[in-house]
Amino acid sequence: MGVLSEGLTQVLIPVAALIGLGFALLQWYLVSKVRVSGHSGGHKSYKDSLIEGDFEEGVDSLEVSAKCAEIQNAISVGATSFLFTEYRYLGIFTGVFGVIIFLFLGSVKGFSTKSEPCTYNTGNICKPALANALFSTIAFLLGALTSVLSGFLGMKIATYANARTTLQARYGVGKAFITAFRSGAVMGFLLAANGLLVLWVTINLFKLYYGDDWEGLYESITGYGLGGSSMALFGRVGGGIYTKAADVGADLVGKVEKNIPEDDPRNPAVIADNVGDNVGDIAGMGSDLFGSYAESSCAALFVASISSFGVSHDYTAMSYPLIISSMGIVVCLLTTLFATDIFEVKNVSEIEPSLKRQLLISTVLMTAGIATVNFFALPSEFTLFNFGTDKVVKNWHLFFCVAIGLWAGLAIGYTTEYYTSNAYSPVRDVADSCRTGAATNVIFGLALGYKSVIIPIFSIAIAIYVSFSLAAMYGVSVAALGMLSTIATGLAIDAYGPISDNAGGIAEMAGMSHEIRERTDALDAAGNTTAAIGKGFAIGSAALVSLALFGAFVSRAGIKTVDVLTPKVFIGLIVGAMLPYWFSAMTMKSVGSAALKMVEEVRRQFNTIPGLMEGTAKPDYATCVKISTDASLREMIPPGALVMLTPLIAGTFFGVETLAGVLAGSLVSGVQVAISASNTGGAWDNAKKYIEAGVNEHAKALGPKGSDAHKAAVIGDTIGDPLKDTSGPSLNILIKLMAVESLVFAPFFATHGGIIFKWL
Amino acid sequence: MGVLSEGLTQVLIPVAALIGLGFALLQWYLVSKVRVSGHSGGHKSYKDSLIEGDFEEGVDSLEVSAKCAEIQNAISVGATSFLFTEYRYLGIFTGVFGVIIFLFLGSVKGFSTKSEPCTYNTGNICKPALANALFSTIAFLLGALTSVLSGFLGMKIATYANARTTLQARYGVGKAFITAFRSGAVMGFLLAANGLLVLWVTINLFKLYYGDDWEGLYESITGYGLGGSSMALFGRVGGGIYTKAADVGADLVGKVEKNIPEDDPRNPAVIADNVGDNVGDIAGMGSDLFGSYAESSCAALFVASISSFGVSHDYTAMSYPLIISSMGIVVCLLTTLFATDIFEVKNVSEIEPSLKRQLLISTVLMTAGIATVNFFALPSEFTLFNFGTDKVVKNWHLFFCVAIGLWAGLAIGYTTEYYTSNAYSPVRDVADSCRTGAATNVIFGLALGYKSVIIPIFSIAIAIYVSFSLAAMYGVSVAALGMLSTIATGLAIDAYGPISDNAGGIAEMAGMSHEIRERTDALDAAGNTTAAIGKGFAIGSAALVSLALFGAFVSRAGIKTVDVLTPKVFIGLIVGAMLPYWFSAMTMKSVGSAALKMVEEVRRQFNTIPGLMEGTAKPDYATCVKISTDASLREMIPPGALVMLTPLIAGTFFGVETLAGVLAGSLVSGVQVAISASNTGGAWDNAKKYIEAGVNEHAKALGPKGSDAHKAAVIGDTIGDPLKDTSGPSLNILIKLMAVESLVFAPFFATHGGIIFKWL
Repeated sequence: MGVLSEGLTQVLIPVAALIGLGFALLQWYLVSKVRVSGHSGGHKSYKDSLIEGDFEEGVDSLEVSAKCAEIQNAISVGATSFLFTEYRYLGIFTGVFGVIIFLFLGSVKGFSTKSEPCTYNTGNICKPALANALFSTIAFLLGALTSVLSGFLGMKIATYANARTTLQARYGVGKAFITAFRSGAVMGFLLAANGLLVLWVTINLFKLYYGDDWEGLYESITGYGLGGSSMALFGRVGGGIYTKAADVGADLVGKVEKNIPEDDPRNPAVIADNVGDNVGDIAGMGSDLFGSYAESSCAALFVASISSFGVSHDYTAMSYPLIISSMGIVVCLLTTLFATDIFEVKNVSEIEPSLKRQLLISTVLMTAGIATVNFFALPSEFTLFNFGTDKVVKNWHLFFCVAIGLWAGLAIGYTTEYYTSNAYSPVRDVADSCRTGAATNVIFGLALGYKSVIIPIFSIAIAIYVSFSLAAMYGVSVAALGMLSTIATGLAIDAYGPISDNAGGIAEMAGMSHEIRERTDALDAAGNTTAAIGKGFAIGSAALVSLALFGAFVSRAGIKTVDVLTPKVFIGLIVGAMLPYWFSAMTMKSVGSAALKMVEEVRRQFNTIPGLMEGTAKPDYATCVKISTDASLREMIPPGALVMLTPLIAGTFFGVETLAGVLAGSLVSGVQVAISASNTGGAWDNAKKYIEAGVNEHAKALGPKGSDAHKAAVIGDTIGDPLKDTSGPSLNILIKLMAVESLVFAPFFATHGGIIFKWL
Repeated sequence: MGVLSEGLTQVLIPVAALIGLGFALLQWYLVSKVRVSGHSGGHKSYKDSLIEGDFEEGVDSLEVSAKCAEIQNAISVGATSFLFTEYRYLGIFTGVFGVIIFLFLGSVKGFSTKSEPCTYNTGNICKPALANALFSTIAFLLGALTSVLSGFLGMKIATYANARTTLQARYGVGKAFITAFRSGAVMGFLLAANGLLVLWVTINLFKLYYGDDWEGLYESITGYGLGGSSMALFGRVGGGIYTKAADVGADLVGKVEKNIPEDDPRNPAVIADNVGDNVGDIAGMGSDLFGSYAESSCAALFVASISSFGVSHDYTAMSYPLIISSMGIVVCLLTTLFATDIFEVKNVSEIEPSLKRQLLISTVLMTAGIATVNFFALPSEFTLFNFGTDKVVKNWHLFFCVAIGLWAGLAIGYTTEYYTSNAYSPVRDVADSCRTGAATNVIFGLALGYKSVIIPIFSIAIAIYVSFSLAAMYGVSVAALGMLSTIATGLAIDAYGPISDNAGGIAEMAGMSHEIRERTDALDAAGNTTAAIGKGFAIGSAALVSLALFGAFVSRAGIKTVDVLTPKVFIGLIVGAMLPYWFSAMTMKSVGSAALKMVEEVRRQFNTIPGLMEGTAKPDYATCVKISTDASLREMIPPGALVMLTPLIAGTFFGVETLAGVLAGSLVSGVQVAISASNTGGAWDNAKKYIEAGVNEHAKALGPKGSDAHKAAVIGDTIGDPLKDTSGPSLNILIKLMAVESLVFAPFFATHGGIIFKWL
């Protein structure tokens, strides 16, 4: 047994979660001090809207502030309305799928209510399969609810912060940065703390029924991961289609045909575009990373429950994944202070280094944090379940597993930054290729994306090798947790991106000066990079998580080997490797079709509304919002069905070996597609921004806005939109979700699966 | 034992090969009857150049013919000169790699010259490992030579046929079609027959030394596949970079900036572009499919040699793969008659159906052919080696293995046609998306490519499942042979594409009438589809072949399972799945960079050569040829090194398990990338041609040439060039070559490999 007692563990975890929530509220309070005077706020004095510092933009400020409030409100209302519509669909899905889970799992032992001897903890008596079916369903519903809540809160914060960031940009880039960053931190800490708290509460409530039956308890808990991830899938796909249909549609007519700036209020699709950033990049990303976190915790807990921790009922060691996450919250809290209080961002060039430093600081601190947790929470030696055999593992082995996951995440983050930031040669080469037009830009961009997978894959491979060798599948799952332990910081710098993007949009729409727009553009360029870094983390962690879930599934399905040299497994492998392509084809085409509709509507408005181009008439924003909404809700169903049905079909008809092949194939193939798609898109976006900003002679020679090279860059950027914000990030969820779904349904597949082969 | 005696087998195989050669010569003779009067041919009368039919284009015909001859000569000289330069490099590589093979394999038993007991044929004495090293090296050299010869002959025929096709287009589209098709058939039959003959001769010569030691004999023969495939790699990559650098460069300045037609003689890169078609699409493709053929034969022979065929010395059954190929030649001969003699192509709309019919006819006939071969050549029951265990297989089981491979090939071919021909909705949707610009065109095109992998992958998976289940790895290798059994027909319809493309180029350059150009364009559009079909076959067969080679490697390395649930295998799997991306990044970037250089040179010539644009001055073609040559020779080295070194590094340092993972990973991932890349490119090309041809109201609304939609389509076409002609098709070779290299080096890796893990 470790040093930490069970009682203390039971105190420390919720305390850490509450500290995280408190810190989130504090950051929110600090952001809220920036006043945005709305329509009704006209009575407030002009001075009220100033909090500190010298006011640099003297003209029309009260009016500007009111305008910002109005736009912010429109975005917030649009986003809320979309999410509520989406949640109605998700509610139906969740209900139906909850019933499926209950029926499938209940049927494993024919809905018997008889307790049975445990499988691993031999000698003990475990609860009936029907109870596991019921509690899995409850956990699924709780996970879904928490995921939805995470996304929704993130969106609320982001739409609360965007206009505030715009207004703060009047006082300088540093002030705007800190507002956007603090808002990101609110989201990061809320999510991390909330996820931890709900999980801890659920485990403790389930324990009231399960008592000593930890096998059943932690088997049921896996439903939590499934719930979280299935909501994330629809959030990512639906949100991704929404945002990119609007973005592509707005750009194709506005920037390319009408030659008006991005986010120009005359563009009918501009509100839909800004709403999209919040429902796609913010709410989708929030649900996604929450899903990863929930799944890696569930995978680790499940493997632990059938290992010596679970069998010998060592609650503290059993809770190791939760303690790591608790430590992560504290570490991220300290890390945040470095960006908000210790180092101050004063000018544009300090933004990216400051965000990058966040990654490094959190990683270094967390390494010490892991060592501390390992020393106090774990016994010096224990045995882990390793596909039918036992593996003796030492305390410090597990330190290396978590730490290598953590550092692999840093390596992925830094690589992503190198390939997507326009401070380095890869993006500059892409920008340079715009000289000869859009075709070379696309060729170079695709090549960049392909190349950017090399280091992340080697990092993931090393992390897997080390953690797998040292501590089997438990090692892999805690490596994933290690990568996600700094999730609060990761989410903070990630959410910062869309918030800055929106802030820029609001500045443009409110008619603020060129200088303000330049500042928000600088924030946004850094935001593109951090968004790519966030996606890199999401993908890297998804790879580790889904391997861990895969391992847990295999263990639970009672398979000893997954041998490529058997036809059942091999066909699973090659079909699994195909799924990310099928899925991407659907989502890309959805964005394309929806964008075509958007283009037609925007063109129609420009052609039929007199005075629109001159700015004397208002466009009909609502129709564009409706096009995006309808498209995303309709089009998220086929890719969603592909992901949700594949494990059910493969498991039921072809059995657990083929399903194992499918999972392995989609994992190793999907990771590559996801990384390359997301980095290609990020690079194109920043190549365009590089030409627009004209920071050096090279960039100036390619620019300015409207030059042939810039037009070529805009085409690349537009192509990259669905790659980086729809297909790419949804693929993480594809690989994770299929794995966690297989894990939840494993008892059913193991008992009743493989109908076709049985028949042959 | 089967019905067919050893003696008869020894007669039938070479006879079939000689029939193939004879048929190729006959087709060549028929093509040669179309006279092309060259510079020195001025003394020939005008009437001489007419062979048959009414002469439709009356003006300047002698001059036109002379001009065609001149251009044909320039293309032929350019292609020959490039290939000879390339072969010098390949010669050095082959020499060095031959030494490596000898040293690595010789070192397995410390260069001992002592004979040892056989591994599988227990009781017998086998030749020393040093002999295997020597004969593997010889087989490698022979394979390399045959591959180079295949590519070279193909190029010679293609450059012989292109102007003849142009001239025949004056008499109508049917005459032009038959000339192009016959020329393709020359190449197809030469390759198939030559490959078979050399292999048969080599086996019989090696037998003089090996005698009863069939294990050693067929182990050495695998070097033949390695030699063939390594030449194909450089041919594909080098040729691919050459052709696409020229093509992209020519298009970007010519079509996009100067608004002059494709293949306009004023364009300085036009000769390089046409040379490229022959060195890339023809020579590269020839080497590639020869490689597939050689490898699948070697894989089948190797597995057979350690099964009951080999152990019981049943020569006829042992030669089953060669007999299947012999039957294939006869079947393809009959099939060709359907296109050249039985059904005549009279107008444009009959071209594609005629080519498609070739696939169907050859598949149906070959199915009967396989049944015949199985009945006569195989014993009714035999045992096959299945990773350490024996598998009893019946005669008719093997029929299903070969037949399912054959029919899977047809399914892949038809799917490819559906996704790349502009007669169907997928390409028309892509064309339609050009309405909103290049960005949506690219998004739709990428989505189309992703979607087009679904059916081929399921076809491959079913073929693998059936053949693997029925006859283990031998089943998979004969399934690959089944798919390749109609290689002569496949190559004929494939080579037809670039020949027609060149014919169109020559018509344009020779200043022939619009009508002629329209005819060659129609041939070319069908050619794009058949080229895509050919690539589909190449990829599908590569998937089966590399799985078969993978199985042979695993058998030879003495591995019993390749378990994904071990860290060694899993990291191999994920890194292997990454390699196609790394490789594509290199080749795409190479094309991009070389194209940029080409653009600069073409622009320079237009700017500095007075009268070039007006057609009064000649461009400097040679400099453009040099740029393509230098770029392709320099840039083919890094991707070549990646492919050649990966198995050596993985095997030597990480051992056979990790290498097995790498092979499986690169196989399942590479197939997807290759299919999607090649179909996306084909679809873009034909979407552009659809708009240009304006065959219906929809197409006319998008066109004509020079419209915004057409410009967007040209951008897509340009992006597709490196995807479909460089990266995509090279990936087949990546997956096959790594597998065959692993197979050849397996004894070394099994003995000395895995240094790092041994040290850890």
